[in-house]
Amino acid sequence: MSEALSPSSPFLAALQGETNAPPPLWLMRQAGRYLPEYREVRRTVPSFLDLCLTPALAAEVTLQPLRRFAFDASIVFSDILVVPFALGQQVTFVEGEGPKLDPVRDGAAIARLEFAGASERLAPVYETVERVVAGLPDGVPLIGFCGAPWTVATYMVEGAGSKDQAAARRLAYGDPEAFQALIDTLIEASSAYLIGQVEAGCSAIQIFDSWAGSLPEDEFARWCIAPTKAIVTRVKAAHPDIPVIGFPKGAGPSSEVYAAETGIDAIGCDTSLPLGFIRNRLQAHLLPVQGNLDPVLLLAGGEALETRVRTILETLGEGPFVFNLGHGILPETPIENVERLVALVKGA
Amino acid sequence: MSEALSPSSPFLAALQGETNAPPPLWLMRQAGRYLPEYREVRRTVPSFLDLCLTPALAAEVTLQPLRRFAFDASIVFSDILVVPFALGQQVTFVEGEGPKLDPVRDGAAIARLEFAGASERLAPVYETVERVVAGLPDGVPLIGFCGAPWTVATYMVEGAGSKDQAAARRLAYGDPEAFQALIDTLIEASSAYLIGQVEAGCSAIQIFDSWAGSLPEDEFARWCIAPTKAIVTRVKAAHPDIPVIGFPKGAGPSSEVYAAETGIDAIGCDTSLPLGFIRNRLQAHLLPVQGNLDPVLLLAGGEALETRVRTILETLGEGPFVFNLGHGILPETPIENVERLVALVKGA
Repeated sequence: MSEALSPSSPFLAALQGETNAPPPLWLMRQAGRYLPEYREVRRTVPSFLDLCLTPALAAEVTLQPLRRFAFDASIVFSDILVVPFALGQQVTFVEGEGPKLDPVRDGAAIARLEFAGASERLAPVYETVERVVAGLPDGVPLIGFCGAPWTVATYMVEGAGSKDQAAARRLAYGDPEAFQALIDTLIEASSAYLIGQVEAGCSAIQIFDSWAGSLPEDEFARWCIAPTKAIVTRVKAAHPDIPVIGFPKGAGPSSEVYAAETGIDAIGCDTSLPLGFIRNRLQAHLLPVQGNLDPVLLLAGGEALETRVRTILETLGEGPFVFNLGHGILPETPIENVERLVALVKGA
Repeated sequence: MSEALSPSSPFLAALQGETNAPPPLWLMRQAGRYLPEYREVRRTVPSFLDLCLTPALAAEVTLQPLRRFAFDASIVFSDILVVPFALGQQVTFVEGEGPKLDPVRDGAAIARLEFAGASERLAPVYETVERVVAGLPDGVPLIGFCGAPWTVATYMVEGAGSKDQAAARRLAYGDPEAFQALIDTLIEASSAYLIGQVEAGCSAIQIFDSWAGSLPEDEFARWCIAPTKAIVTRVKAAHPDIPVIGFPKGAGPSSEVYAAETGIDAIGCDTSLPLGFIRNRLQAHLLPVQGNLDPVLLLAGGEALETRVRTILETLGEGPFVFNLGHGILPETPIENVERLVALVKGA
């Protein structure tokens, strides 16, 4: 695209295929526990879900990292499980144990999910978006997000996080019609949710498929690629110019077919994807890429961090690229390591 | 190779590059909780580790699945954590919680590991091997195994299983010399352990790298490929004809470099690796492959199982191939599904 037509945001420009030097930078979970000012706000509400659904506070914590770091994008402070919550499923976050849900294990339970009230239950997130957009620095766009139907379904069926997502995989094999009904409900609800975030002011979307790596290829095609494509199609039908980043964590070699078939504009790459694969199989002929610094290396810091950041910049920086982690920032990460990362990426 | 030179075991023949129709078949964790006769034996000992280290019982449960199913190989009933146990680390298995170890978190703790007594502590496993070999059906070889140093180290450093192996990764970044010392100790101990199993009667070896998927490529090269290569080199120096299967679970696109550089004879493929990738990038030009049926699909059974088994056989059966799961068999798996699988693979 010509310079005249490029958006003023280097992040949005990268998603449209532009190469920027230095590349734009943001971090998954950049609003979060590694920041003392986040922990301060978190202490004032009884639960994590309260924080997600209280617009003044969610907006505040969304904006916090932007006050410290020269990130090129912000992302709504929320959780992928607000969608099951919006569908009427009981969702709680137990400190130190992760989410607990009232599991949805058969067709009858799936049929009881309530799409009708979802939009109202998600209204606080839209208000958060409006507040954040009003408070963001110029040229820093806000990313809206949702969990991919497969990943959200694994929590809904298991009733919690799980090592191998066996409950959802078992339901998908044993009663594919019921599981398809769950996925279809999630496609509807997630599309509406993303469109709602865009209409409230988000300039880009990310779809997190954290458990994409647990499926064989046929199930990956059916439960990851097809639902993601359906969501992208719906979002683009409503808002053709909104860029969508897909993040199929752990998909490995299947990242390529995911990138080619879902209709996404850019792909998030996890830490385990080799840089040569990202450059040659994804960035060079398919689409812009985002990633993939190891969050543990950001936590550890030191010379190894500097070396790796340079390698990533050298390997991926000559094409359309958004610098990010390969997974969310860890709560124990020292703030000075984030400062150093920003300086390294920005070439200071 | 000519027919005259091929081993009488179709499993060993496949590892040497022969194509067999039907392919040989065994299942990871084929001796285990899905069998009522296993649960019966398990009840007679206080802990899982006792079962691993009581030769008469470990041999009995190793042989149990061979009495039911026409598997083409058996595998020693043991656990990858017998090696840290042999090195003097406290290891316990808490029912329903997984292993707990007294964590080894710094150079001093690593230096205290006792290689000298390891062989004696592992002697029960060698006795198990001898007992199993005496009791196996003709033409069914016994596979010895160990965990790869990286995977074993993740448990040793964390003190338990973990979602992201962060403690080990953090130590590896923060104090690479200490972590290298741990890996070197594990290379020593694991090589000796594998050689001991071979000398007791095992005809093949598998190295399980269950957490290979959690590392970026440079760390994958250093902590997965290099130590595995070191072990293969030592085992082959002592026993040049022993075939070694490497199983770098979750390695994705990096499976290719792992297959090319470690010196293994065959590669175990997890469930998420696409069949086209396995055939074209691994089997066609590098080495025999083993895998990769989803254990959840074996549990679920039905028509989907039959269809998938046929697809795997059609895609991988025309080259050197060992049929297996992509991960261990699940405890809830119905025995009749295993019977159906054997019949399907054997073409009955």
